[in-house]
Amino acid sequence: MDQLKPNLVNSSPLSPIRFLERAATVYGDCPSVVYNTTTYTWSQTYRRCIRVASSLLSFGIKSGHIVSVVAPNIPAMYELHFSIPMSGAILNTINTRLDARTMSLILQHSESKLLFVDHLLSSLILEAISLFPPNAETPRLVLITDDDTSSATVGFIDTYENMVEKGDSNFKWVRPTSEWDPMVLNYTSGTTSSPKGVMQCHRALFIATVSSLIDWSVPNQPVYLWTLPMFHVNGWSFPWGMAAVGGTNICLRKIEVATIYALIKQHKVTHMCGAPVVLNMLSNYAEAEPLDHPVYVLTAGAPPPAPVLFRAESKGFIVSHGYGLTETSGVVVSCAWKPQWNKLPSSERSRIKARQGVGTIGLIEMDVVDPKSRQGVQRDGVTRGEIVFRGGTIMLGYLKDPESSSKCMKDDGWFYTGDVGVMHPDGYVEIKDRSKDVIISGGENISSAEVESVLYSHPMINEAAVVAQPDPLWQETPCAFVCLKSEFSQKPTEKEIIEFCRARLPHYMVPKTVIFKDELPKTSTGKIQKLVLREIAKSMLHSRL
Amino acid sequence: MDQLKPNLVNSSPLSPIRFLERAATVYGDCPSVVYNTTTYTWSQTYRRCIRVASSLLSFGIKSGHIVSVVAPNIPAMYELHFSIPMSGAILNTINTRLDARTMSLILQHSESKLLFVDHLLSSLILEAISLFPPNAETPRLVLITDDDTSSATVGFIDTYENMVEKGDSNFKWVRPTSEWDPMVLNYTSGTTSSPKGVMQCHRALFIATVSSLIDWSVPNQPVYLWTLPMFHVNGWSFPWGMAAVGGTNICLRKIEVATIYALIKQHKVTHMCGAPVVLNMLSNYAEAEPLDHPVYVLTAGAPPPAPVLFRAESKGFIVSHGYGLTETSGVVVSCAWKPQWNKLPSSERSRIKARQGVGTIGLIEMDVVDPKSRQGVQRDGVTRGEIVFRGGTIMLGYLKDPESSSKCMKDDGWFYTGDVGVMHPDGYVEIKDRSKDVIISGGENISSAEVESVLYSHPMINEAAVVAQPDPLWQETPCAFVCLKSEFSQKPTEKEIIEFCRARLPHYMVPKTVIFKDELPKTSTGKIQKLVLREIAKSMLHSRL
Repeated sequence: MDQLKPNLVNSSPLSPIRFLERAATVYGDCPSVVYNTTTYTWSQTYRRCIRVASSLLSFGIKSGHIVSVVAPNIPAMYELHFSIPMSGAILNTINTRLDARTMSLILQHSESKLLFVDHLLSSLILEAISLFPPNAETPRLVLITDDDTSSATVGFIDTYENMVEKGDSNFKWVRPTSEWDPMVLNYTSGTTSSPKGVMQCHRALFIATVSSLIDWSVPNQPVYLWTLPMFHVNGWSFPWGMAAVGGTNICLRKIEVATIYALIKQHKVTHMCGAPVVLNMLSNYAEAEPLDHPVYVLTAGAPPPAPVLFRAESKGFIVSHGYGLTETSGVVVSCAWKPQWNKLPSSERSRIKARQGVGTIGLIEMDVVDPKSRQGVQRDGVTRGEIVFRGGTIMLGYLKDPESSSKCMKDDGWFYTGDVGVMHPDGYVEIKDRSKDVIISGGENISSAEVESVLYSHPMINEAAVVAQPDPLWQETPCAFVCLKSEFSQKPTEKEIIEFCRARLPHYMVPKTVIFKDELPKTSTGKIQKLVLREIAKSMLHSRL
Repeated sequence: MDQLKPNLVNSSPLSPIRFLERAATVYGDCPSVVYNTTTYTWSQTYRRCIRVASSLLSFGIKSGHIVSVVAPNIPAMYELHFSIPMSGAILNTINTRLDARTMSLILQHSESKLLFVDHLLSSLILEAISLFPPNAETPRLVLITDDDTSSATVGFIDTYENMVEKGDSNFKWVRPTSEWDPMVLNYTSGTTSSPKGVMQCHRALFIATVSSLIDWSVPNQPVYLWTLPMFHVNGWSFPWGMAAVGGTNICLRKIEVATIYALIKQHKVTHMCGAPVVLNMLSNYAEAEPLDHPVYVLTAGAPPPAPVLFRAESKGFIVSHGYGLTETSGVVVSCAWKPQWNKLPSSERSRIKARQGVGTIGLIEMDVVDPKSRQGVQRDGVTRGEIVFRGGTIMLGYLKDPESSSKCMKDDGWFYTGDVGVMHPDGYVEIKDRSKDVIISGGENISSAEVESVLYSHPMINEAAVVAQPDPLWQETPCAFVCLKSEFSQKPTEKEIIEFCRARLPHYMVPKTVIFKDELPKTSTGKIQKLVLREIAKSMLHSRL
């Protein structure tokens, strides 16, 4: 059997980039990308990517260089998910909602050689570049505009459309030499610490892409609406996934609820992803007509509160819930639905659907382990531990940060997520809190997520977040921040909200303070900034004392 | 970037065996396998497999041993697709339609250590064992019966159900140490040469499984009817695929048309696979009521003749057509359908659907190359060449046959299929003939498939095959073998068939001889045995001279 080994024929590197070449053949004359009045076909998208890849080489980009993008979900952003790796370079998309200082730090840390910039973000980027140390090498800038005929402005070496125009359509794109070659670099959003650069290889993204498609039962030629920013963990791998199944990518510049409903109707959208905040937006939109066809929505990032799930489903959205991290190439756990659950009362259904769930087929193993013994906790749905993963979608590591890498990728072969959860008897994992979100009151652990879930069930509450407030007697107590729905003229009092919680929670879990806000502070990826709320809670305490 | 390498966390071996463990969690209480009045759940199937794997170890089976199975599509056959690899051994299913001599040769060549035998095949196997050379080590035999309480008969060391019963349900199954470890051994059916043992590794079968699911748009929890023998290239990887999506496997002992229609109705079957002969059987069954729900059928092995496609689709089957070899882990090319083709006239649709198509997402590259220059032929749908593949689903090689391995897996990195085809301008491949099936007449190449397609369109012809007949003038001429439909009392004459072809084919392609048969000789996997027909054609010529 010694001759039965990998060879040139059977060991070609796995990579999701190849899906585009195949789509150009299989779906060559079918729509690939739609944006306003522009529609491209898959053969056009392929040719445009080939040309941009060749233009990158003519700018001196070499294999292993970092090439960055700061853009919303427009066609160029989609294409660059292919063309940058097709030049041999590593794709680095940057969150458009970051400030100039953070962008500058990311560009410096990654040593980005070239940066594609959407025209509406150009002044922000020029500011970020101005923050580089004197004499430091800065990335060259390419301008992306919605108008094909614009020319490059001061500070930019070229326009995106000009790179398409002058590129070589016969260019043979650069295949990875190994499936372990890095393909993308994503900086974590940094809710709890400074951004870290997560490196993912071709193999991991192949596995993440195919397992997401299978897990969500995505058929061939879906119509996919880009409500999830592509800069958010590469849109959970669906840029490549849509090439694998020949889908139509409906692009949009701004994620606004009226636009979303209009595009769903106009293009007969079948699939879309989004953070719970998008789901909330969709479910609260009073003007929405009922959907005339089913729309599958995949949400992740935080468990969707039960009432949000209700409302979205009653409008005709079919909601799936998943979980993952930048470090896992997006969604690797999903709340796989069982038909018998359809018979349960809706409150029970929502409770089950808010669980993170089971590993997708690409994830090899998942567990919830005791932080001390590192052994799996009891599968009782109660005992807490840290959620850990093992499998082919886990990152190569953090760029230039072996210490952080080895802190979460341990020698026992597990990736430690830092998220606290429980393992239910049926093998479904449920997050009880991000590690830092546990409120410890009188020696009892309180899950802020549990308290929030009760708050969300209040008919007048639109959004809620619960954080720890320091307390001389109890050490910490829960402090709730709530936004009320605008449609009610009468507002509940702090006391009424506390009463409402008391009727539904153990006493120790009931918020001692309720703070009404018009809006909750959010990170650029739509996560509520608990850090900021904790500061407010702390300062309010001081002012009270 | 040097630290960004594969490590214990991210480089777990890819294997489709893991899908079962996941299914036991996700779909634990959902049906996995249904057979007559027995229904197992996924957690039961998992436990049964664990127990059989542990029992194999207690019989001295070790990692890398070959363990064989001779059985129809019954639950044990399904379970052994998991339990044998879970013991660390290599699964070798053997075609139940082979004769004792061929079975004996396969068992000797593979050095099989243990053989699971369906009770209806036990005398055949005992005969095969008797053909071993004196003093040769023979595999130990385990009896599979439909009756749980049977005990082992003479020559058998145990029964399958007893191995389940006494196995250890806490056994920790043997994970592959590398994804390149061999997992299955399949002997080619040998239409053109002696059987060769194809070795496939865990990685190849993972890729084959996920790409088949995506290519065929198989959703979660389908109901899958086992009309394709699992011994036929492991049922094109769907034993593992069904575990990945938590499907229900409807097992059946004999593939009979009335049973198939009854099971489709009873279990609301959604998906099934089969050789064109199964499709033919379904489409010709006059008593069939129209289907009350869509049934997706995937066919491969030979292009389905246009009239067969028509009839199947008119009964409500949604037919997809694929292509692959034992050496490629099943279907790796499929005729991906484009919506605009639905508008074409049905004859044109069938012509397009009979093309083999494009690579699935697991196949890296495909081409049609000139046999001399080894360069890709013109993409004109006319120029013939050999179909070649490259990618992760291609075999490790032939067992104990490095010479044959290197003949088809060449140093240019291509796997040479031996099949002759053309590349259409749209990138779809069409087989024009297995290399040996080309008829060369007066210097012209005639595709027997093209002539057969015309014969199949004759209203009275049920099955047809065309082979070369030696000819003193023309070198070879086409000789047609046809089976007529039973429902017509009047039979066409040889002359009428020839006239029919003359009206539809270039003169040189028209059969010079038509031979009427009640049945065409077939290989054990349902392929028409052209070799036998060629011998008949040759001998008839002699008797005529």
